[in-house]
Amino acid sequence: MTVSIAVAGASGYAGGEVLRLLADHPGVEVTTVTAHSNAGQRLIDVQPHLRSLDYLTFAETTPEVLAGHDAVVLALPHGASGAVAASLPDSTLVLDCGADHRLTSEADWERFYGGEYHGAWTYGLPELLHADGTRHREHLSGARRIAVPGCNVTAVTLGLAPGIRSEVIEPADLTAALAVGPSGAGRALKTMLLGSELMGSASPYAVGGTHRHIPEILQNLRVAGAAHPSISFTPVLVPMSRGILATITARLEPGADASSVRSAWESAYSSEPFVHVLPEGHFPKTADVVGANTALIGLAVDEDAGRVVVVVALDNLVKGTAGAAVQSLNLALGLPEDLGLPRNGVAP
Amino acid sequence: MTVSIAVAGASGYAGGEVLRLLADHPGVEVTTVTAHSNAGQRLIDVQPHLRSLDYLTFAETTPEVLAGHDAVVLALPHGASGAVAASLPDSTLVLDCGADHRLTSEADWERFYGGEYHGAWTYGLPELLHADGTRHREHLSGARRIAVPGCNVTAVTLGLAPGIRSEVIEPADLTAALAVGPSGAGRALKTMLLGSELMGSASPYAVGGTHRHIPEILQNLRVAGAAHPSISFTPVLVPMSRGILATITARLEPGADASSVRSAWESAYSSEPFVHVLPEGHFPKTADVVGANTALIGLAVDEDAGRVVVVVALDNLVKGTAGAAVQSLNLALGLPEDLGLPRNGVAP
Amino acid sequence: MTVSIAVAGASGYAGGEVLRLLADHPGVEVTTVTAHSNAGQRLIDVQPHLRSLDYLTFAETTPEVLAGHDAVVLALPHGASGAVAASLPDSTLVLDCGADHRLTSEADWERFYGGEYHGAWTYGLPELLHADGTRHREHLSGARRIAVPGCNVTAVTLGLAPGIRSEVIEPADLTAALAVGPSGAGRALKTMLLGSELMGSASPYAVGGTHRHIPEILQNLRVAGAAHPSISFTPVLVPMSRGILATITARLEPGADASSVRSAWESAYSSEPFVHVLPEGHFPKTADVVGANTALIGLAVDEDAGRVVVVVALDNLVKGTAGAAVQSLNLALGLPEDLGLPRNGVAP
Amino acid sequence: MTVSIAVAGASGYAGGEVLRLLADHPGVEVTTVTAHSNAGQRLIDVQPHLRSLDYLTFAETTPEVLAGHDAVVLALPHGASGAVAASLPDSTLVLDCGADHRLTSEADWERFYGGEYHGAWTYGLPELLHADGTRHREHLSGARRIAVPGCNVTAVTLGLAPGIRSEVIEPADLTAALAVGPSGAGRALKTMLLGSELMGSASPYAVGGTHRHIPEILQNLRVAGAAHPSISFTPVLVPMSRGILATITARLEPGADASSVRSAWESAYSSEPFVHVLPEGHFPKTADVVGANTALIGLAVDEDAGRVVVVVALDNLVKGTAGAAVQSLNLALGLPEDLGLPRNGVAP
Repeated sequence: MTVSIAVAGASGYAGGEVLRLLADHPGVEVTTVTAHSNAGQRLIDVQPHLRSLDYLTFAETTPEVLAGHDAVVLALPHGASGAVAASLPDSTLVLDCGADHRLTSEADWERFYGGEYHGAWTYGLPELLHADGTRHREHLSGARRIAVPGCNVTAVTLGLAPGIRSEVIEPADLTAALAVGPSGAGRALKTMLLGSELMGSASPYAVGGTHRHIPEILQNLRVAGAAHPSISFTPVLVPMSRGILATITARLEPGADASSVRSAWESAYSSEPFVHVLPEGHFPKTADVVGANTALIGLAVDEDAGRVVVVVALDNLVKGTAGAAVQSLNLALGLPEDLGLPRNGVAP
Repeated sequence: MTVSIAVAGASGYAGGEVLRLLADHPGVEVTTVTAHSNAGQRLIDVQPHLRSLDYLTFAETTPEVLAGHDAVVLALPHGASGAVAASLPDSTLVLDCGADHRLTSEADWERFYGGEYHGAWTYGLPELLHADGTRHREHLSGARRIAVPGCNVTAVTLGLAPGIRSEVIEPADLTAALAVGPSGAGRALKTMLLGSELMGSASPYAVGGTHRHIPEILQNLRVAGAAHPSISFTPVLVPMSRGILATITARLEPGADASSVRSAWESAYSSEPFVHVLPEGHFPKTADVVGANTALIGLAVDEDAGRVVVVVALDNLVKGTAGAAVQSLNLALGLPEDLGLPRNGVAP
Repeated sequence: MTVSIAVAGASGYAGGEVLRLLADHPGVEVTTVTAHSNAGQRLIDVQPHLRSLDYLTFAETTPEVLAGHDAVVLALPHGASGAVAASLPDSTLVLDCGADHRLTSEADWERFYGGEYHGAWTYGLPELLHADGTRHREHLSGARRIAVPGCNVTAVTLGLAPGIRSEVIEPADLTAALAVGPSGAGRALKTMLLGSELMGSASPYAVGGTHRHIPEILQNLRVAGAAHPSISFTPVLVPMSRGILATITARLEPGADASSVRSAWESAYSSEPFVHVLPEGHFPKTADVVGANTALIGLAVDEDAGRVVVVVALDNLVKGTAGAAVQSLNLALGLPEDLGLPRNGVAP
Repeated sequence: MTVSIAVAGASGYAGGEVLRLLADHPGVEVTTVTAHSNAGQRLIDVQPHLRSLDYLTFAETTPEVLAGHDAVVLALPHGASGAVAASLPDSTLVLDCGADHRLTSEADWERFYGGEYHGAWTYGLPELLHADGTRHREHLSGARRIAVPGCNVTAVTLGLAPGIRSEVIEPADLTAALAVGPSGAGRALKTMLLGSELMGSASPYAVGGTHRHIPEILQNLRVAGAAHPSISFTPVLVPMSRGILATITARLEPGADASSVRSAWESAYSSEPFVHVLPEGHFPKTADVVGANTALIGLAVDEDAGRVVVVVALDNLVKGTAGAAVQSLNLALGLPEDLGLPRNGVAP
């Protein structure tokens, strides 16, 4: 029994990546794709890499078009998903790749996004470690409204949660600097996203605590057990279309050492299909995970600096967005969690 | 009266960049270039971008060849410059682009480099702020043995020294994550430096406090007034041939605020020809400084995180190496400090 | 009944890509990987993107190690495969990703490669159009020795064969300029392949008719019906790790026009699962096919210039190498031709 | 006596590059910069790489603002320069970096651009070889209206003119495929120019004889002596912000050989300061000329294909635009032709 799926906002990068994954997913069929300005065009003319979906044509994003599917994936601009979801029956699985339903705090929403607050949905990060040792995937089974996490958030959360839950790192005064590809910003026409601006250059943005992903990171760290987390978070655009390489540091808790640190992360992820801790002395690069739903983690303890350094590599469009959506969809629908999800990166 | 210069190790990236700058320098003439395996070849066949130097041919790197110049720039592998310098008269200005004479602590040398310790030369970072408010350029006037700083070191030092000297940031528990181009590693044939490995990817190296530039950074921070500095330092190779974008964080000292922070950096660099603090809300990208001897600094105070974020952009081969050498040479020889040094980047 | 496979030379880019495809292939199991200097290491430590194959360890490339498999894929340096193949029983399927068994002319081998000539194996380009209208795939059914084509050769051959076979283009005085990623050159430690050399630059090589892929192209064009083909062929390395964008031109035959040209290519490939002709006015980019076994073709007739322009995009490591190997393996073993082969690119 | 200059359209890439060159030009002073949407902003906030011009602020592009300068450089969108030039006295030197005044044929203008035809100005390619052996620079002395050539045009013209003038190549059935950086397309907000689209990919555009630079190329080849030139011309965007690598082929004339070919090009450019023919077996890469007003040419004769292959590397923003403007300005004003123009590239 195949699951029928509609993808709204399928002309963008996130929507395109959802389609790429679903196209090879044995348990689902994409029957509808919608777009705004591209409505009426063939999918393949806008997303020419999706050859196996050459039978699809963009429809308008309307309640009528989205009705009647087992699942609807929303890859829409911020603020657009609330109304769409309201038009769909509660029994339809809706996954929102946007930010509208991620934050549990209306105050955070007000401060970092603004506009109408839509309330939080079940959070789509199965590997998120709770303070009690459970994983977030339990909450995804049977869920019908799922908020897919932000890509940077996933990298930083996966990198820090084990240390916080195990109390080997201090949950405050954290730092994270991320080398990121611009595809996370979508197909938006902004000067700073032009190839001429980006190629041969590294450029920071949202410096100094203003990035919208910060409250979502802190929310996750509280789930993992941090009472009062704080983080200095800086993303830097670098010349690669996709990928996130997060360099995260945290102060060692007194008494913790290299062994207890490694043990905390390894025990957290030893059973995970998509999150792997590399051996001592090994660190990931983003090419290792391009196209894959895999997050790789490297760990080092810098005794001189008194900090643990956690390096996380993931593909912002896969584990950071579309892969998280499909993994959550699998869990919500009772399918094998890893169904249709690539584990191997496309490298070099 | 033109200064005659020999450049040893002129077949590599650092040596080539020294030549590119000296070629347009009105006060000097490059009369000799040396190399190892390329000896006997025309410079232009190995460094085809240096059209105006098409009259030069590589000689062997011997004392005889290097003798008789007013200045000798060494762009040799670590460990090679001590012997070369010993063969040259004290009156010859020798600038070493390698690491051999940077560290004042033999213990640091032993731990991070090893092999024979050669002692420290005058350090070639004119803008380095001393705890007493003087600049390091005073020490360069008339110097005859100059150690050119490491490229990452220059970025981090310029980014932190004003805050440390002004006591608006804590000098310990600093963090720095750098997006760097691979040209800093030279023309070495290593798998990790292949284009196929680097393009489309971000890859960290020397994670966890092992990078050789760390003791040099701490040495500089002590000059700026830090009693017990410590830093978590992580370089990440990104797909651009040159450039360093350093994201540096430091805890605010109690009582310091955005205004005192900005004031500390602006007063430190307001008279500098090559180091500029950008206005509030502006942050540099590396393209802005490609090919130039300029370092650009952006500043933000993150009240939530309790940290100052300093972003520094420079060209590792210019302000990070060859430009620092020429700037120091100018000072040592009593020429105008900015003679022959480009201020404008080649962007986009 | 699963096919057991050994991959020799699995530490390189071609071998790694064969493994990436086979890892997701439902009809085969990779049981052995071999390497030279990496023998004894875990595969995952050398090819960290191949997470699902974390159980494999490199063995030495010896007859004993390669014996006993249903199929052996050779991804070895030129000249190494002849001896290895000779040690394997005739009943074992051997696919050679190197050049040793591609050329049917010993004179061509002598001129472009030199050394011992090993004779030609069945050529692994299923879509190759023969002058009689048959496709080469017929020859692959049941084959036990298969020579996988060169990556540039596949691009140019697919681009030209339909026009030659249909006699709408002249088979002589052809031109091809290819923008290529350096992964086609393998993990070799050469200065010209360093990231610092390649990034931000476009560099031609083997200019003027010296590239080793030329005789193989002409050989294929003769199969398609050209009596005396000739081609000016120039590859240009551009800053992307993988991909080939071939811009090919051919003079229109008298009487041919845009309609007959389009018809020739469309009829040639209308039933192909992996080769697609784009609609009028559409042209492919390499990102559309990264990671996929797909070749995309755009066509234009330039009346003023009297030439047809054919643009072909493919991934040198997939349709250009590893995908061709797997596609040929499927045919040789009687499996569905497209089994385990991705059709969709990883874009952006 | 310093020449005062205004640059109109100084917020774009071409205008920015004109400023970068003029900033280091000893004979001129930039006193005015104009822009459209950026009027009122500091130049340095829009072009942060131009540190030495931090005193300039954008004015509106009006006749009043542009009046009173010795020279005005126009870097405006197509169609805008005619009206601006008409408002300036004949004695003012006006250089148009746009296409409005390049084509001598109104029919060509109609077919490839359309809109009002403005007539041709003196063409700004000093090295253009005329059929009678003179160079175009003679026409630039004292000129007051100069049309700066298109960047691709300069590459192809420099590559072909010597062979045409010397009659060693046939002037018809030429082919050119160019690997180009996107900065030539300006700072325009188009999806195809986004970094996510361009990085990791090669994408052709204007395939099949539709590119606007084609009539300009043919016009130049006629100047060099071609009665009926024709060319198949295809540009391919590759992932580098600037640079053009043109691979050009032409059929050998009967009787011509490698020696006469080399002689034709070498004699044409032996006295040129900015155009150089590389030795046999050497070919240029674009990194060699980044930031420089240099064009490098490599030559090969492919006897089997019956074609000469000419590879030309130049920086589209320098020799292809801004450098050509400054070089022409020098000639027009009687300054040394090479004044203020960099010869050495910024590599790697």
